[in-house]
Amino acid sequence: MKILVTNDDGIYSDGIQYLVKALEKENKHEIIVVAPDREQSATGHAITLHRPLRVKEMNFEDIDSKTLAVDGTPADCVKLGVEAILDEKPDIVVSGINRGPNLGCDVLYSGTVSAGFEGLLLGIPSIAVSLATYEDWNFTYAAEFISGLVQNLNQKDLSSEVLLNINIPSLDKDELKGVKITKLGNRSYTNMFDERFDPRGEVYYWLAGDIVEEGNDEGTDVTAINQKQISITPVRLNLTDFKEIKALNEKELELF
Amino acid sequence: MKILVTNDDGIYSDGIQYLVKALEKENKHEIIVVAPDREQSATGHAITLHRPLRVKEMNFEDIDSKTLAVDGTPADCVKLGVEAILDEKPDIVVSGINRGPNLGCDVLYSGTVSAGFEGLLLGIPSIAVSLATYEDWNFTYAAEFISGLVQNLNQKDLSSEVLLNINIPSLDKDELKGVKITKLGNRSYTNMFDERFDPRGEVYYWLAGDIVEEGNDEGTDVTAINQKQISITPVRLNLTDFKEIKALNEKELELF
Repeated sequence: MKILVTNDDGIYSDGIQYLVKALEKENKHEIIVVAPDREQSATGHAITLHRPLRVKEMNFEDIDSKTLAVDGTPADCVKLGVEAILDEKPDIVVSGINRGPNLGCDVLYSGTVSAGFEGLLLGIPSIAVSLATYEDWNFTYAAEFISGLVQNLNQKDLSSEVLLNINIPSLDKDELKGVKITKLGNRSYTNMFDERFDPRGEVYYWLAGDIVEEGNDEGTDVTAINQKQISITPVRLNLTDFKEIKALNEKELELF
Repeated sequence: MKILVTNDDGIYSDGIQYLVKALEKENKHEIIVVAPDREQSATGHAITLHRPLRVKEMNFEDIDSKTLAVDGTPADCVKLGVEAILDEKPDIVVSGINRGPNLGCDVLYSGTVSAGFEGLLLGIPSIAVSLATYEDWNFTYAAEFISGLVQNLNQKDLSSEVLLNINIPSLDKDELKGVKITKLGNRSYTNMFDERFDPRGEVYYWLAGDIVEEGNDEGTDVTAINQKQISITPVRLNLTDFKEIKALNEKELELF
């Protein structure tokens, strides 16, 4: 398989390095890493229009695959990798392993997930992977799991219209309670801004926020993670609300 | 109605100024403008985590409403406006008027549309408005149309789970062929990167791209615009692919 690996924590982050090493172990993939040269968390689906992008070849001691750092966003990396660097489309885009969960509405803000969406837009099956913790980073089994999944999916025809958004607890295999196919859950943030004053008395605002996970039933990604399961959520960019098209037509809005 | 107005072209752009003036004409809305202090096109749903945000009150000659410039993205503006600046939730978020169309998959990259998505995430009905042209900017009727729509929606209970993504041809009213409720169409880009060399012989890449609009039937936003209609697409952030949950469960992947 030809695999394009990217992330949003940047090319130097542990998560992507564990992931690439685990994929390399299989010895049968052709891997190229095209990732941001620095952290790009919460960049969403931003792309770079107003300046050109630079690409720099990197050498990491433990990584054999071709590794390129781009001074852009995760979506830039996928676009550039597929359209300007690779001779042919990769079979899969794997984005991660992100430091921290991407559950529920997090997928909208996440650079990791947006890299996967960019893969879909280019017609490539894509996977976004996140380590669902804020401390005690254990990438070992997560990387191994993804390597196995990529191998397994190869034989089962993954659709290029579906992104698999995967969250993995930061645990060893024997502590995990299996895998669950889930839907996106409810996760929101409260008390979002911390208002502070600088030494000159001018106000500034830090984005903060406490997580609220309410109304999550058995089927959601949030619940799976809380139950020490690996969560796999199939996500599709089917944004049109067809019911509402009908409803709006029936509302007889006097618009024109 | 309490209306939060934002955009992604920045607070100085014509589009937002026409929009605010048209909304002010009604004389019955309470309007607050919270918009980026500079252009933020193609920022997608990026939010600012790693530095604080500054807010600056602006004075524009023709605008009476409170107007705040934020050194962040469109999604930052909505979040900050609702969570830190306004005492109570606005009744609606109106984002625009964007310079250029946001059709089909553009909605994923668009800062204008993402500001609307942020509104939905905060439980507020939202509208994203774009002028569907690349030249001959005629914001006059577009602004008037949105002002009328906001008034009309007020009486018909717009859902806070649906974003209306509106594209308006850059024409006067008598040149337009009415309003069409649409689905997102197919719009992609080819030849995406222009490879160039700097004066020192180093390569750099400019994102470019020709638009391809293929396979668009009567019901799409792309077709409506091509037919000089105003396109209104109801969009929902319902990303989980429920069919694929079933399919994945049936695939018997040996994952664990």
